[in-house]
Amino acid sequence: MAYQKGAQLYEGKAKKVFATDDPEVYIVDYKDDATAFNGLKKGTIVGKGVINNRVTNFMMKQLSEKAGIPTHFIEQLSDRETAVRKVTIVPLEVIIRNVAAGSMAKRYGVEEGTVLKRPVLEFSYKCDALDDPLINDDHIIALGFATEEELATIRDLALRVNAFMKDYLLEAGIKLIDFKLEFGKTTDGRIVLADEISPDTCRFWDAKTNEKLDKDRFRRDLGNVEGAYHEILRRLIGE
Amino acid sequence: MAYQKGAQLYEGKAKKVFATDDPEVYIVDYKDDATAFNGLKKGTIVGKGVINNRVTNFMMKQLSEKAGIPTHFIEQLSDRETAVRKVTIVPLEVIIRNVAAGSMAKRYGVEEGTVLKRPVLEFSYKCDALDDPLINDDHIIALGFATEEELATIRDLALRVNAFMKDYLLEAGIKLIDFKLEFGKTTDGRIVLADEISPDTCRFWDAKTNEKLDKDRFRRDLGNVEGAYHEILRRLIGE
Ligand SMILES: Nc1ncnc2c1ncn2[C@@H]1O[C@H](COP(=O)(O)OP(=O)(O)OP(=O)(O)O)[C@@H](O)[C@H]1O
Ligand SMILES: Nc1ncnc2c1ncn2[C@@H]1O[C@H](COP(=O)(O)OP(=O)(O)OP(=O)(O)O)[C@@H](O)[C@H]1O
Ligand SMILES: [Mg+2]
Ligand SMILES: [Mg+2]
Repeated sequence: MAYQKGAQLYEGKAKKVFATDDPEVYIVDYKDDATAFNGLKKGTIVGKGVINNRVTNFMMKQLSEKAGIPTHFIEQLSDRETAVRKVTIVPLEVIIRNVAAGSMAKRYGVEEGTVLKRPVLEFSYKCDALDDPLINDDHIIALGFATEEELATIRDLALRVNAFMKDYLLEAGIKLIDFKLEFGKTTDGRIVLADEISPDTCRFWDAKTNEKLDKDRFRRDLGNVEGAYHEILRRLIGE
Repeated sequence: MAYQKGAQLYEGKAKKVFATDDPEVYIVDYKDDATAFNGLKKGTIVGKGVINNRVTNFMMKQLSEKAGIPTHFIEQLSDRETAVRKVTIVPLEVIIRNVAAGSMAKRYGVEEGTVLKRPVLEFSYKCDALDDPLINDDHIIALGFATEEELATIRDLALRVNAFMKDYLLEAGIKLIDFKLEFGKTTDGRIVLADEISPDTCRFWDAKTNEKLDKDRFRRDLGNVEGAYHEILRRLIGE
């Protein structure tokens, strides 16, 4: 199907969002811009937009077809562009952790790499001005960011996404350390997986060497950033 | 009963803890020292130790007798000293909120004074070096700070303490905005309410005027700090 690209609705740090001639459909357009620390550090990762578009769509399709996860994905339109179902984003960053790393390791004084006995879910309130603060279930419900029922759905979906991806990636030689998901509500009130799943939003470590194959190479100036993104594409899609 | 005061085991910001001749009993000794912002701001509130000792013991007795809450309280020994059951403190600050104020209001950009639709529970990992970071149930269990069962007990007790105190205080013309509890484990593995309940650890607002009658008068330089502590003592115990 063909969609007519309409007005730009939003330019984020990693993607642009456009309206289309179908009021239920948006087009997302992936950029090569890289940012970290809530925009304080800026750069470019050549080819990142193309890779993140492909990796996201590949994972969303697998999740939908093999794990029954409802997603916003409709179809890839070009190297950097994808048609997605328009949703109202639930203002939460849903973080799933299998191994302590990054902000969690720092916050609780735990060594990065400590394997967690079971997956840990963590929510941040999606609000750049407040620096995406950590938030718990009670706060979310009291402040009306999601209902108790929506939260239960999000928790269930997030854990199912993790279980599927963890196994799937391990077969490709990748450890899924942690990742961030966003969920949205469709016009008819269903909760679906939205946004992206990519080396920008996941920590991927090589299963044998623990080498970082994700955005931490950029955040921490580890070098060979483009190489890591290409390696993920290669292992998942074989190109 | 008489306890022989033994070695000082700990000097905290507000209290000293002593061993006794009974290995299951500690003596806590309340000081007039006032601190805020994790020790950055220091001062003295004359008479605070005496008031906090009496208010804590009064509330613990009410909670035990009228609401069936297990507590560490044994008996008051002097103006500033109380015998308590020795426990291993669960390393969590358990915060119960009825109205958004303080760190919660700031963290989520909510106006101080916003009434919450239902009580909100919040946990911080008790660790001064890490600045008592916010923590959720998943983190607590994964990091082994409490078991799932202990956490359920703590949640249940905290909500029952809140329900009782909220009503009780309102009859004394005081709104219970939020407060911090600590729980401990006895030698035989039971979870009991420990530490203190006082204007140092609760936000108390006058029910009619919303005047602050708690440690915020010190934290925010509002003046008449001693007067507020005395007013709480007077309204609760009538002196
Ligand atoms: N299906 C969808 N419908 C509507 N909005 C979506 C959908 N999927 C993702 N989004 C939103 O589109 C935007 C994508 O832009 P980008 O990821 O670059 O944003 P960002 O810089 O991360 O900032 P933020 O996520 O805080 O808005 C995000 O705001 C994301 O929440
Ligand atoms: N029944 C109890 N058995 C053992 N320890 C207790 C008991 N009740 C309270 N405590 C602990 O005794 C100490 C009291 O000191 P105080 O409240 O001044 O400490 P603090 O400066 O607040 O620091 P922190 O609470 O972070 O140790 C606290 O560490 C508290 O957790
Ligand atoms: Mg984004
Ligand atoms: Mg204390």
